[in-house]
Amino acid sequence: MNSAIRIIGIDPGLRRTGWAIIESLGNSLHFVAAGTVTSDGKADLASRLCQLHDGLSDILHTHMPVEAAVEQTFVNKDASATLKLGQARGIAMLVPARAGLPVSEYAPNAVKKTVIGVGHGDKKQIHMMVKVLMPRAKFDTDDAADAIAIAICHAHHRQSAPGRLAMELAK
Amino acid sequence: MNSAIRIIGIDPGLRRTGWAIIESLGNSLHFVAAGTVTSDGKADLASRLCQLHDGLSDILHTHMPVEAAVEQTFVNKDASATLKLGQARGIAMLVPARAGLPVSEYAPNAVKKTVIGVGHGDKKQIHMMVKVLMPRAKFDTDDAADAIAIAICHAHHRQSAPGRLAMELAK
Repeated sequence: MNSAIRIIGIDPGLRRTGWAIIESLGNSLHFVAAGTVTSDGKADLASRLCQLHDGLSDILHTHMPVEAAVEQTFVNKDASATLKLGQARGIAMLVPARAGLPVSEYAPNAVKKTVIGVGHGDKKQIHMMVKVLMPRAKFDTDDAADAIAIAICHAHHRQSAPGRLAMELAK
Repeated sequence: MNSAIRIIGIDPGLRRTGWAIIESLGNSLHFVAAGTVTSDGKADLASRLCQLHDGLSDILHTHMPVEAAVEQTFVNKDASATLKLGQARGIAMLVPARAGLPVSEYAPNAVKKTVIGVGHGDKKQIHMMVKVLMPRAKFDTDDAADAIAIAICHAHHRQSAPGRLAMELAK
């Protein structure tokens, strides 16, 4: 019952995909590692998707998380950006799913609500609260910090049905 | 020089991904197989992406194509639909790329221009011309027929640099 649950949080993006590994044990959270998988902007799309795939696969093999949480991509008005994000997000969900991990999705405002207490707020507030909640956390990019926040969000909500919760928090 | 090139054409979609295998030998084209990979609309997104991945992987293993062509997703005004399509498209490009196949992209109007002679036209015209160009072609869905058209488009244009050509035809 009380064994630590290792979680990977993923903030998907075609250029930069943030990832974070944390452990949840009872009410306490522990930082394990975080970083960013990048793809070569000069390479063709198929190669870039392979780079994201291979980078995330390596992280799963190294850190062996048992549950995954992926941010529900912000759908903006730029269809071309949404498409790019969608392609990267497909890979970000596929890799843990193929490794047998349950994959939960959280809307950005659900993540914010968990980490900073309200459903809105800027990146600086998220980073500050990540540092407060997890003082040992180290991150190289905004995307890695966001991935930590996503993993924290999942750790707090993983007992509930993720789909229903995400919808509820998205209201 | 004159050996047959086996091509897979893919029309990506989250619910239905059309695929087609054709062979190009000199100036002649031969139909090999076509079909549709479906995902279970009631399953969660990660599982659906796995279903598309496994379905496409099976087809690659069965038919062993050496080049892939994927339709450049139509970017419409519905961001949520674009995101879904993007996620499916990420998988449709990843699977052949990871198998070592070069993956070319073609805009829908490039495919139409090749198959029906002009850059616009409805699905019926495409299906009719697919039947004319490849009388033995059999397809179970519109998506499979579109995948045949994409494969034909690639067979016609594969000598050129695909990226440049796709852009040129997209004008």
